Amino acid sequence: MSNATKMQQSHPGEGATQRLARYVSTSSPEDLPPAVRQETARTFLNWMGCAVGGSQHETVDIALAALSPFSGPAESNILGRSERLDPLHAALINGISSHVFDFDDTHLRTVIHPAGPVASALVAFSQHQKITGAAFINALAVGIEVECRIGNAVFPAHYDIGWHITGTAGVFGSAAAIGRVLNLDVEHMAWAFGLAATQPVGLREMFGSMTKSFHPGRAAQNGMTAALLAARGYTSSAHGLEAKRGWLNVLSTHHDTAEITEGLGERYEIMANSYKPFACGIVIHPIIDACIQLRNHVEFDASAVHSVALRVHPLVLELTGKTEPRTGLEGKFSVFHAAAIALIEGDGGERQFSDRAVLEQGVIDLRRRVTASIDEALPPDAAQVTITMSDGRVIERHVAHAIGSIARPMTDADLERKFRALAEDVLGEDATRKLMDLCWTVGALADISIVPEAAAT
Amino acid sequence: MSNATKMQQSHPGEGATQRLARYVSTSSPEDLPPAVRQETARTFLNWMGCAVGGSQHETVDIALAALSPFSGPAESNILGRSERLDPLHAALINGISSHVFDFDDTHLRTVIHPAGPVASALVAFSQHQKITGAAFINALAVGIEVECRIGNAVFPAHYDIGWHITGTAGVFGSAAAIGRVLNLDVEHMAWAFGLAATQPVGLREMFGSMTKSFHPGRAAQNGMTAALLAARGYTSSAHGLEAKRGWLNVLSTHHDTAEITEGLGERYEIMANSYKPFACGIVIHPIIDACIQLRNHVEFDASAVHSVALRVHPLVLELTGKTEPRTGLEGKFSVFHAAAIALIEGDGGERQFSDRAVLEQGVIDLRRRVTASIDEALPPDAAQVTITMSDGRVIERHVAHAIGSIARPMTDADLERKFRALAEDVLGEDATRKLMDLCWTVGALADISIVPEAAAT
Repeated sequence: MSNATKMQQSHPGEGATQRLARYVSTSSPEDLPPAVRQETARTFLNWMGCAVGGSQHETVDIALAALSPFSGPAESNILGRSERLDPLHAALINGISSHVFDFDDTHLRTVIHPAGPVASALVAFSQHQKITGAAFINALAVGIEVECRIGNAVFPAHYDIGWHITGTAGVFGSAAAIGRVLNLDVEHMAWAFGLAATQPVGLREMFGSMTKSFHPGRAAQNGMTAALLAARGYTSSAHGLEAKRGWLNVLSTHHDTAEITEGLGERYEIMANSYKPFACGIVIHPIIDACIQLRNHVEFDASAVHSVALRVHPLVLELTGKTEPRTGLEGKFSVFHAAAIALIEGDGGERQFSDRAVLEQGVIDLRRRVTASIDEALPPDAAQVTITMSDGRVIERHVAHAIGSIARPMTDADLERKFRALAEDVLGEDATRKLMDLCWTVGALADISIVPEAAAT
Repeated sequence: MSNATKMQQSHPGEGATQRLARYVSTSSPEDLPPAVRQETARTFLNWMGCAVGGSQHETVDIALAALSPFSGPAESNILGRSERLDPLHAALINGISSHVFDFDDTHLRTVIHPAGPVASALVAFSQHQKITGAAFINALAVGIEVECRIGNAVFPAHYDIGWHITGTAGVFGSAAAIGRVLNLDVEHMAWAFGLAATQPVGLREMFGSMTKSFHPGRAAQNGMTAALLAARGYTSSAHGLEAKRGWLNVLSTHHDTAEITEGLGERYEIMANSYKPFACGIVIHPIIDACIQLRNHVEFDASAVHSVALRVHPLVLELTGKTEPRTGLEGKFSVFHAAAIALIEGDGGERQFSDRAVLEQGVIDLRRRVTASIDEALPPDAAQVTITMSDGRVIERHVAHAIGSIARPMTDADLERKFRALAEDVLGEDATRKLMDLCWTVGALADISIVPEAAAT
């Protein structure tokens, strides 16, 4: 009997918490359509690349220095590093790494970054308790399903109030995933959701500080804690989501529980997951895309550029209108820098938003020849770039849908290129190739703990 | 220069987060008035008795079983037990113990239980880093000041929405206390508050399950985590409380920042802290008080009682109108049981709300002769008990202000009696006496880590 069929069996009067708990508790790998398994592997690969790439960031150094003295048994690898911590702390640190570049996956409808809270917990926990590849893919898909459905139920009201939805919904995803691999029954899974509901993480006020990356990591850690407590019989509300003083009512001014309960096991939110090709806000992706195409597809010499004219959606100048960025981070808020560096280096990865890239004289010279004008008619994933060369020649490129958008998703090869740019500096070429192969085939592994081992230095 | 004077120095345009951070960061033991130090010791003694008394509860057993495998270095004692865990986990478990009987201290204006989040963190941390008695009393007083002021700023709106204010405000108290003993400067203390703001704990929906006690414990643990990260330079918002998408706006529909900032260092919320004499909801305390007085002050024979008539505030029957309780927990919601057991045993402690007490035949016989009527004119801390004896004699007692109310606080001797009733079964008489003496004199100790050691088995 498939899970979709199981879910359709009536449980009259069952609330959202119970229904979600029943879905997770009875889910099994065989129920997942092949396309869902494949997208889950793509999500995992993308997350792993981000975590390894982010692992050398100062934010991770500081969190490790602060919390390592309190770590339990060193069972779980810190991705991209040599340290090992207990699974709860490893989930936190790996979650921080995976989000620190803001380069991880995005569920566009809710702006949740789905993998962080769920994969960070599962990967760390796999080194405490054996998880097969089939169970891993199922738990990751189901965890993401839970957090995105809860997100759908409260977005945009919940986000508008000021909650960082990746952390607040993510804790349920982690609780579901760890609860699933702990084989919790419906009653205990509902308690895990109650324990998750009572420890949401993340205010949007923290954006711009290291605390933003703390959110997916802490959500992973809190969800794991919730599942571990529930597994031992630590009781909680059985109606933590929909109760009068439950999560939906307390943390949002509006919600729709049907978004949580309808079509469970029939449609999967992970099919709407997206991956960023470039290490900056999604709003300037069409410009970077156009500039890379211009660089790659015509005879192009940056020193022979007279001027670059951008036509952009209004949000682009509102959010990324900085003309003279001084640091890599400021470069992410400069469409002028993004265009210049993409024309010179043909990419928009983390390396192109480093202090080095922003301060390089050739980049500065080109950047100062870039102008931008607003075109109200452009959709957010479109842009136009027109280059006038010194000899008077004009070349231009219109992008209707930027790479990484739902209409033009990154291919597997695109994901691999992104992964290599993130991981090779940390792990080297050979280990990076091996780790990518493990990510693609994770669903077939007998024990997935070899994946975090392969991601360590 | 006193702290009050320091606080009055102008810092124009300083927001609530900065001002509170400056207050905590510049606070010192010499600034505390003697009455505040004394009340802090009373609060500490009361909290310690509750934690030791609650330590044998199933809730604590389960939390320990679930989380001990993940504990770091076993530096910190679990109060009332033989286990040791790392300070973060010990803070969580001791916070659970201290609240599991719902017998801990109450800041009546906000219904915050102030000691749990703050003392649980400080005591556990004292076994990781030396804390002198003077620094401990200061950090405990300042932590309680911070959480109660933040509570004052949002109560009742925040509580009415459904937040368990002890956990949501408590995390700031813990962050302040640990931040103070870590000697954080204003900038780092503000980051600790940002990290606290982003991880509130506690929905009221969890009341009635083990998750309620989780809240003060997790608040202690989260606040400690916040301070540890901030101390190493993990950045956060500098305006986590008052920002547009900060804690005050996101977690409440109404707030008044003046409650946080005005009179800092001049008046102390701990002076409005109260202690429960009886192990049940405060609403039936006047009845228990009256019954104990009747039992102690006249010739009294329970078997010669014909009937007991209670006159009570309307809330009493609404909240505690259960006539036939079957368990100790149900007994806490029966004013009839509370009256009967108080007349027979002369107390209303945890022992009087056990399954044993509720099921004893003599108690049942007397309980069935108790009736209650509502008197709209009675204030909530008043009650009247009229007993008609079999021989026709009538004795009665009016309580205008129940013991434990602000008007009639528990004396030091009352607190000691409560402590003994909670701790002696766990530690024995001698160790209980020794531990009480340490609590009274904690402010003079060179190193307070001997206190948790003395509270262990």
